[in-house]
Amino acid sequence: DGGRTESLDYEVIENFAYREEQANRGRLFVMYQVAVKWFFALLIGIGTGLAAVFINISVENFAGWKFSLTFAIIQKSYLAGFVVYILFNLLLVLSSVYIVTQFAPAAAGSGIPEIKGYLNGVDIHGILFFRTLIGKIFGSIGSVGGGLALGKEGPLVHTGACIASLLGQGGTTKYHLSSRWLQVFRTDRDRRDLVTCGCAAGVAAAFRAPVGGVLFALEEVTSWWRSQLMWRVFFTSAIVAVVVRTAMGWCKSGNCGHFGSGGFIIWDISGGQEDYSFQELLPMAVIGIIGGLLGALFNQLTLYLTSWRRNYLHKKGNRVKIIEACAISILTSTISFGLPLLRTCTPCPEVDPASGIECPRSPGMYGNYVKFYCSKDQEYNDLATIFFNTQDDAIRNLFSAKTLHEFSAQSLLTFLVMFYTLAVVTFGSAVPAGQFVPGIMIGSTYGRLVGMFVVNFYQKLNIEEGTYALLGAASFLGGSMRMTVSLCVIMVEITNNLKLLPLIMLVLLISKAVGDAFNEGLYEEQARLRGIPLLESKPKYEMRKMTAKEACGNRKVIDHTRGGGTLVIGLMLRRHSFSEFVKPVSSRGLSIEDIHLSSDDLEMYIDLAPFLNPSPYVVPEDMSLTKVYNLFRQLGLRHIFVVPHASRIIGLITRKDLLIEE
Amino acid sequence: DGGRTESLDYEVIENFAYREEQANRGRLFVMYQVAVKWFFALLIGIGTGLAAVFINISVENFAGWKFSLTFAIIQKSYLAGFVVYILFNLLLVLSSVYIVTQFAPAAAGSGIPEIKGYLNGVDIHGILFFRTLIGKIFGSIGSVGGGLALGKEGPLVHTGACIASLLGQGGTTKYHLSSRWLQVFRTDRDRRDLVTCGCAAGVAAAFRAPVGGVLFALEEVTSWWRSQLMWRVFFTSAIVAVVVRTAMGWCKSGNCGHFGSGGFIIWDISGGQEDYSFQELLPMAVIGIIGGLLGALFNQLTLYLTSWRRNYLHKKGNRVKIIEACAISILTSTISFGLPLLRTCTPCPEVDPASGIECPRSPGMYGNYVKFYCSKDQEYNDLATIFFNTQDDAIRNLFSAKTLHEFSAQSLLTFLVMFYTLAVVTFGSAVPAGQFVPGIMIGSTYGRLVGMFVVNFYQKLNIEEGTYALLGAASFLGGSMRMTVSLCVIMVEITNNLKLLPLIMLVLLISKAVGDAFNEGLYEEQARLRGIPLLESKPKYEMRKMTAKEACGNRKVIDHTRGGGTLVIGLMLRRHSFSEFVKPVSSRGLSIEDIHLSSDDLEMYIDLAPFLNPSPYVVPEDMSLTKVYNLFRQLGLRHIFVVPHASRIIGLITRKDLLIEE
Ligand SMILES: Nc1ncnc2c1ncn2[C@@H]1O[C@H](COP(=O)(O)OP(=O)(O)OP(=O)(O)O)[C@@H](O)[C@H]1O
Ligand SMILES: Nc1ncnc2c1ncn2[C@@H]1O[C@H](COP(=O)(O)OP(=O)(O)OP(=O)(O)O)[C@@H](O)[C@H]1O
Ligand SMILES: [Mg+2]
Ligand SMILES: [Mg+2]
Repeated sequence: DGGRTESLDYEVIENFAYREEQANRGRLFVMYQVAVKWFFALLIGIGTGLAAVFINISVENFAGWKFSLTFAIIQKSYLAGFVVYILFNLLLVLSSVYIVTQFAPAAAGSGIPEIKGYLNGVDIHGILFFRTLIGKIFGSIGSVGGGLALGKEGPLVHTGACIASLLGQGGTTKYHLSSRWLQVFRTDRDRRDLVTCGCAAGVAAAFRAPVGGVLFALEEVTSWWRSQLMWRVFFTSAIVAVVVRTAMGWCKSGNCGHFGSGGFIIWDISGGQEDYSFQELLPMAVIGIIGGLLGALFNQLTLYLTSWRRNYLHKKGNRVKIIEACAISILTSTISFGLPLLRTCTPCPEVDPASGIECPRSPGMYGNYVKFYCSKDQEYNDLATIFFNTQDDAIRNLFSAKTLHEFSAQSLLTFLVMFYTLAVVTFGSAVPAGQFVPGIMIGSTYGRLVGMFVVNFYQKLNIEEGTYALLGAASFLGGSMRMTVSLCVIMVEITNNLKLLPLIMLVLLISKAVGDAFNEGLYEEQARLRGIPLLESKPKYEMRKMTAKEACGNRKVIDHTRGGGTLVIGLMLRRHSFSEFVKPVSSRGLSIEDIHLSSDDLEMYIDLAPFLNPSPYVVPEDMSLTKVYNLFRQLGLRHIFVVPHASRIIGLITRKDLLIEE
Repeated sequence: DGGRTESLDYEVIENFAYREEQANRGRLFVMYQVAVKWFFALLIGIGTGLAAVFINISVENFAGWKFSLTFAIIQKSYLAGFVVYILFNLLLVLSSVYIVTQFAPAAAGSGIPEIKGYLNGVDIHGILFFRTLIGKIFGSIGSVGGGLALGKEGPLVHTGACIASLLGQGGTTKYHLSSRWLQVFRTDRDRRDLVTCGCAAGVAAAFRAPVGGVLFALEEVTSWWRSQLMWRVFFTSAIVAVVVRTAMGWCKSGNCGHFGSGGFIIWDISGGQEDYSFQELLPMAVIGIIGGLLGALFNQLTLYLTSWRRNYLHKKGNRVKIIEACAISILTSTISFGLPLLRTCTPCPEVDPASGIECPRSPGMYGNYVKFYCSKDQEYNDLATIFFNTQDDAIRNLFSAKTLHEFSAQSLLTFLVMFYTLAVVTFGSAVPAGQFVPGIMIGSTYGRLVGMFVVNFYQKLNIEEGTYALLGAASFLGGSMRMTVSLCVIMVEITNNLKLLPLIMLVLLISKAVGDAFNEGLYEEQARLRGIPLLESKPKYEMRKMTAKEACGNRKVIDHTRGGGTLVIGLMLRRHSFSEFVKPVSSRGLSIEDIHLSSDDLEMYIDLAPFLNPSPYVVPEDMSLTKVYNLFRQLGLRHIFVVPHASRIIGLITRKDLLIEE
């Protein structure tokens, strides 16, 4: 059960032990620490980059084998091909759900809400364990390779965060992979920076979008930021880009099987429509509205379904989770294979041989115009082009320029309804799952649909349906995840088209506004459902009228400051420099049960006063809750004490007092 | 004298008046306020965009007239051309320095250090006045059009900030351009957000780089950030992009004279070198080191020169400032006209007519291969190509691909030494001046120089000198301004080449590290010199060992909390809802001298207790200064009280208490 949450404390506890440690540290240690930070940033980049490459190679190869095998078999028998296709998918999904349920329960789902929670100050049990990392990597190979309606982006963010956190605590003690030498980061505060780097690295690796990764970490995930950190995060993202690029260059010569044919830019549309006329703004606004509505609906449906799953289905144990995932896999395979069969083929259009587009495409190649269950030679099946394909290739086909009228409205509508349903149903099953790629799929389908109408309506203009598909993708993600700047930049980086930025923005502004009218963003909704108490950046308006005293109710506080002397030993677990008791993030570490005390020991007293925080942040009782909230949120505190007005004032610190020269 | 600074208070003062105001405000008012915020974001975008277009049109036209006139005259007499050229430049510079010295003294210089200070919590007198805005716009037309070694980017950031601030206070009272209706933003806190938008808009307008603008505001200028603000800032930047793009589309048909020929991307090198081999990394690292050294030297030289100017030269009055600027103008004109004369011309290379490059370029056109003082027809003067040209065109020539061996090493070296000297000398004179474009000029010169050596050395590789010029530009800006992420993104957006991002990063990492070994960034150094007490994001290491009590010294604090009753009336000026006394940012407003009190009035007492801050932030006396600093900096405070340990604890607020439902 991943529901156990614990607050993190990003405050520095300036107890006796901390001060002693500080006093012993020389300038050299500080420099060593800075060097280690940069070294870790490098390692996080390399690790996340390699993990992404590994996942990509595996997924592409599984998918490649699957489709080439199926295509080979269906030349003889469609039924045999269907069975092989279903079994192949089922096997992959089964492996994924087995790994997750048996070995790494925290690896299920996207992981972004949990990481967001971690950076906001809530630790969810198991979320950064070593086994979660392993489960996430292998689980997402199975789930994505198995053709489910989910993506690998969320899991990659989680993977990056796990790598960062494991590095931060110098390895994992449970599997004896730790190094004392690297354990310079003992507090939550230090690890937070590394996890932020890891998130950015994950996005950078998933979309090969370094700037987008930085902005995603900054806008969507983290609650706390400094400009020095930004540079380190950017460095990590760039390392990821270099690693992925180098690996892709190496794969290009055929070292990685089916992987390596595409360029660095995932869905390059830089050759597409560059300019737009004012008449087009109306259909684009319509796309924004559709995106907002469908996105909000997606959030709401997944919320109901996940809450039902949590409260009923998944309570019945792992067996049910496995059966559920397998059922979804069979359903997905059946629909994606069966529906194109029902569709009659379309004759190939005249294609310019110079454009490099073939119709029908040659077997075993990627591209538009798939021939599937067609009687004539010069025909293609437009539904199979998007449905019976990997999601990456389907999106490439939907975004493609110079392929006007490739898809029929009927196919796109069928696909939209089916895939939307599948995405909703798949969300929340016990496999690693990202929502970016399914979101792009859904969005680009209705985007292309709108584009088709626009092409027919404004016949004179130079319009590409692919551009509308891109805008549709942006609108759905905006309507569901409510990301803004980072989403714009990610869309620009994955399509390599800077000139569409204002249009993407327009669409996002609308879809976010429409979505916000109905519910919260996907990650916030999911975090709430999972019991992760996120503190938003803005305090609620009601807080202006509440005071600190009202908020703290009348719970009794044991005031230790005066008594000194003994305390419950449990408090020690939180303290700073008892290195055995350092709170580990990704393994269990020692707990109070591991300590065996004889009856003599129990007679003894320890003075814990030196380990208490002597100077916590305090607020006067009549301060408004808004100000308390700001203090709490901005400084990442775990608790704050409400005190009466000071009896006297010792002094005043102004800006000038803080400008000391070194 | 712009040296008068005043701390801003970004804390909410929850006095009686504030609470009353809050109680009177309904939900509707909050919605109105949000609507006004977005409306202002729109207006800031439009205003800054139009200001940028206006400046661009004026500068390009002045420069265009100047060069076409001079080129026409030198067909007959070089001496006459020289005189006309000098006079034309002198007139423009004179107009600029006259406006600045007589009318808007705060408009001199770049303005970025001052805006940075404002967002950090220090108000510099006059920096956001309406007259400063006017002075900045017209002054920078004169100084940039007059061919000085400075750019219009810094002034545009300042312009954006001024527009934002003026909107924030609902116009300017002095010139009767204010609207009560829009005066919903009365506190420093509200205005800060608008000024942040204005900064981003300025960068977006200057470089036509919306994402770069957002990141610049975030990384370089602002000290405080929230993700909601990010979206508004991005919206503003995108509006700027749309306004500028629309204006340029309108200008393309010839409505704006000499302006409008270039595309939206300022220095498009998307057709240049796309790939790089590992051997090239070494020369690129060398560029980084040169950038760090020259950048740090630039900062140091300008620091000495500015401090000398402030302490001696400019103390002697405006007349000296005017003479100084005129002398610099004459010097610049002489060098840029005279040096190319001394250079012998080079025979034109064979150019592919398909590439669109002409040699020599036809008169009155922009482009490479300028013919200047050449005896033969098929010759060009490489020094004139960069020196006797606007800086924008010179940079375009330096960045240009497919023009290998256009420049000789001797010309580039001459230009580098001369332009570097001019840039240092010009910096700090009493005209609006940005350092971006001069920095790009300097950097691209030595970058191209290194590129030439690389081309000769690795003859087999497909290398473009223009790419090295771009990296050089990035390295110099990194070495001088120490910007990181935003600079990367700006470089990518102004050259439209996403693929060079890792190389730009590499170069920046090195040049920033090298520069940091010598001194602080340009803006920080200048801010310190101008007496702007910036608080960096990271507290000094020494502070860990200091306590709050030590920092506040033993100044006496008048403790009003107990006495109640009367207070100095001066304090009223800071208080919140005495709307007559609202502290204006950009005009003088009412001051204590404007209030005429009769002797009867002076007998009367006012109880100011309701207007005092009843719940300021306090810290216990033994808290380390690091924690105090974090609190002060993160919350943007003006002062903080040091108090003894609380006598008792009333309560404890944890995360759960802050999660109230609406
Ligand atoms: N009455 C109290 N007196 C002293 N310390 C308290 C008291 N109540 C809570 N704390 C401390 O405040 C912190 C957080 O309090 P909270 O009420 O959230 O407890 P929790 O159940 O441990 O929740 P969390 O998982 O958020 O830490 C803990 O460190 C706890 O020790
Ligand atoms: N001894 C004091 N007792 C009460 N308030 C004080 C005292 N000293 C300073 N303050 C208040 O603290 C704030 C900033 O103090 P500072 O010492 O910086 O004064 P300043 O010269 O006004 O500087 P600044 O221009 O930074 O505001 C002011 O609002 C001032 O009224
Ligand atoms: Mg707890
Ligand atoms: Mg003052």
